[in-house]
Amino acid sequence: MGVYLFVKYLKDEEFIKKFGQKLKQVRESKGLSQEQLSLLSEVSQSQIARTELGQVNTSISHVAIYAKFLKVDPKELFDFSTVKK
Amino acid sequence: MGVYLFVKYLKDEEFIKKFGQKLKQVRESKGLSQEQLSLLSEVSQSQIARTELGQVNTSISHVAIYAKFLKVDPKELFDFSTVKK
Repeated sequence: MGVYLFVKYLKDEEFIKKFGQKLKQVRESKGLSQEQLSLLSEVSQSQIARTELGQVNTSISHVAIYAKFLKVDPKELFDFSTVKK
Repeated sequence: MGVYLFVKYLKDEEFIKKFGQKLKQVRESKGLSQEQLSLLSEVSQSQIARTELGQVNTSISHVAIYAKFLKVDPKELFDFSTVKK
């Protein structure tokens, strides 16, 4: 049980990390700095930084906000096919 | 400012509601009850029910869990094109 929960935890970490990498990738592809995205979205720069590092298990309302100000469909932020393994 | 924040709040609500509708749609298309998804995912049935009703601003780790046990790509849960307006 302990091992199972540990594995589950690791998998979630991986997903959260990939989301962060994707967010960073899309943000950079739009030519925006973390600071600029912070100013647009009213999400603090430190939260954006920690999200991109995979340290924040962000909410779907934040996904919607990021997608809105990055001008992408929210589902694009979950397309991890372009993210490094 | 008050009006702006109110509009922003409404928009988030709409996104969270659409996510819930989509989750329900995918779950039903897989022939799973809320109870069955709850047993598989170890997320409580009441939380699944509230998420489907758009009452929970769920985390991306829960998105990953739902996608895993519904056997869909996480990004499919954000494809709202099949969700009623």
